[in-house]
Amino acid sequence: MSMAEIGKRGETGVDRAAFSLQDRAARRLLYDWATQHGLQVSQDSIGNLFLRYPGRDPRLAPLLTGSHLDSQPSGGRFDGAYGVLAGLEAVAALASAGVRPARCIDVVAWSNEEGGRFAPGAMGSQVYAGVRTLNDMLPSRDPSGVALGDALAETLAALPEAIMRDNNQAPSSYLEAHIEQGPRLERAGVPVGVVVGIQGCLWLEYQVLGVAAHAGTTPHEYRCDALEGAIKLMGRLRDHCLGASSSCRFTVGRLSVDPNTPNTIPGRVIFTVDFRDSDRQLFDELGQVLREARAGSLFETQVRELFHHPPEMFPPDMIGVVAAAARSQDCAAVELVSGAFHDALFMTGLCPVGMIFIRCRGGISHNPAEYASPDDVTAGAQVLMSALYRLSQD
Amino acid sequence: MSMAEIGKRGETGVDRAAFSLQDRAARRLLYDWATQHGLQVSQDSIGNLFLRYPGRDPRLAPLLTGSHLDSQPSGGRFDGAYGVLAGLEAVAALASAGVRPARCIDVVAWSNEEGGRFAPGAMGSQVYAGVRTLNDMLPSRDPSGVALGDALAETLAALPEAIMRDNNQAPSSYLEAHIEQGPRLERAGVPVGVVVGIQGCLWLEYQVLGVAAHAGTTPHEYRCDALEGAIKLMGRLRDHCLGASSSCRFTVGRLSVDPNTPNTIPGRVIFTVDFRDSDRQLFDELGQVLREARAGSLFETQVRELFHHPPEMFPPDMIGVVAAAARSQDCAAVELVSGAFHDALFMTGLCPVGMIFIRCRGGISHNPAEYASPDDVTAGAQVLMSALYRLSQD
Repeated sequence: MSMAEIGKRGETGVDRAAFSLQDRAARRLLYDWATQHGLQVSQDSIGNLFLRYPGRDPRLAPLLTGSHLDSQPSGGRFDGAYGVLAGLEAVAALASAGVRPARCIDVVAWSNEEGGRFAPGAMGSQVYAGVRTLNDMLPSRDPSGVALGDALAETLAALPEAIMRDNNQAPSSYLEAHIEQGPRLERAGVPVGVVVGIQGCLWLEYQVLGVAAHAGTTPHEYRCDALEGAIKLMGRLRDHCLGASSSCRFTVGRLSVDPNTPNTIPGRVIFTVDFRDSDRQLFDELGQVLREARAGSLFETQVRELFHHPPEMFPPDMIGVVAAAARSQDCAAVELVSGAFHDALFMTGLCPVGMIFIRCRGGISHNPAEYASPDDVTAGAQVLMSALYRLSQD
Repeated sequence: MSMAEIGKRGETGVDRAAFSLQDRAARRLLYDWATQHGLQVSQDSIGNLFLRYPGRDPRLAPLLTGSHLDSQPSGGRFDGAYGVLAGLEAVAALASAGVRPARCIDVVAWSNEEGGRFAPGAMGSQVYAGVRTLNDMLPSRDPSGVALGDALAETLAALPEAIMRDNNQAPSSYLEAHIEQGPRLERAGVPVGVVVGIQGCLWLEYQVLGVAAHAGTTPHEYRCDALEGAIKLMGRLRDHCLGASSSCRFTVGRLSVDPNTPNTIPGRVIFTVDFRDSDRQLFDELGQVLREARAGSLFETQVRELFHHPPEMFPPDMIGVVAAAARSQDCAAVELVSGAFHDALFMTGLCPVGMIFIRCRGGISHNPAEYASPDDVTAGAQVLMSALYRLSQD
């Protein structure tokens, strides 16, 4: 709740854009808390902030946990910040109990996960994991024209006490705690989720071309209405995907009509399909169906791929460690797949990855109404601590 | 084709906005042609321009014919201009044949039918017929901020030779020739249409409220997708209207989605329905069904009426005169209802009204590709001349 005061918006909202003054204040607060617990603070060239609890053997790769401190423009108090602070609490608990791990435990606050000010999102974890480079990111500007390089340099300079460190240091494993951002734990009546992987995601943009014509003078039998063609196409695709896979998600989130006046039959409709599935085979097969789909023969259809990431299932070892940690804390937990992306997705190329979800009210996120109860927040941090303990002893 | 040189855009397009320099040049050209035929030219306070062929009995109300000279921003050569020039040709033919009518025949070029620069459209005919007043119109400004009053005063001043006359002088009847702007005459293989009336038109705007949520994390059974709700609603309404009336037209021309991002389930959809029918009873009954329609119980639905005009059927006498004129010219003709509005719609309150349509290629209008053949243009003008002759002898 103290962290949520920084960038506070209304009663329960948070507006903490990446590399903003609010972001810098949040980093400063995290630095202060970390040093109070005796942790060593460092940062890297993309602004990722690391809090190190030293282990007994400096030759072992560190264990990494964390999430992000930046928020959506009208975000809540838990998305991102929870994973960073749960990591800090877990490490502080281990330290106060006198538990000294074999390997170092680093708590990370990744830069710019949300991507709302500077595109793309998950910038810090992508650069750290080598998915993209710092140079790939530097052309990014925010909507008011501020260059990423300038905002980043000011952010780094605002915390001169932090030691500079390199990217791409592979941890032994990465474990991220996060609110679910969906309704399944609440509906299941369970506080904690053992995340088994992250859904694959395919974004396609369809353009359906018909013939714009006068709504009053053109009889129905002569029409080539692009909106009708688009609606039939999206209905057919939706029915096909939901019929073929019980695990998939199919969403038409963006749709525009041209010329978009009440008395003109639409001549062109552009819409997106967000398709997700955790089953690799279904994801690939249905993705191919979606790519090849066309509206009826009356229309010209163009399909463009906007984004594609296959499902990432976590290693059984990592899933097992989280499940065992929940059992050891007498915490009810169910396995589930993450529907959203997280920094964890990009870390899968670098090291074994796991995630812990906690229940959030109504599944609401990216919204000031985002809420997780103190009990659930605590339960998730206890499971995280227990899992970090196990992973840091290897 | 000479008139189409004024405001010419590309090979066959016309851009002649109301009260623009192009509009003034068009009025000047029409004035010159009218005076060459010995017609008396006058204009009224809203800029309607009248060309009078005097009749034998000045006590009789004049017979009125015409249309408009202004065009859509990317319009064609025939919409509007055809009716004015066909009227001028018809009167010139009567004059050159030595036919002196009982009553005066006035050829009118109504101001600002299209409404593309200054809203609303059909400004000249509405003010003339007393549907709205000049003062109602004066607050109108064009997109660059020019006041209607200024543009109108300059337009009137640019033709000082024209005598000023009053509005609201009821003619004996009004007859308008126009391109069909639809495909029915072409499909029927007939050059001329005897217009029996103008469809009623109802514009409704529906707002369907669901719950915006994350496309990745929200299972389908928990969704309240406003776009799905809206699509079901519009499909149900469309099926109901087209099932209940073979004469109706149902168009969703404008649709917007909020927040309109690929990975968010739509929380709000706003769409319009343009509903038209020539049958008064069906128009009223189906209009009521449309006004009371709501999306499923998952959603909140708001319905707002944007525009409403009931069907206007022309008097049988006027329909008969046009049909007889076509027969007398050995011109094949079919009866049809106008799908679009015209200045004629607003004149129905002032006097008996009729319309003559001519075939246009592909039904295309409001487009540089708008085309009517010289034969059809001539046929329509001959039918108009014959009908004017009959109506002016009473």
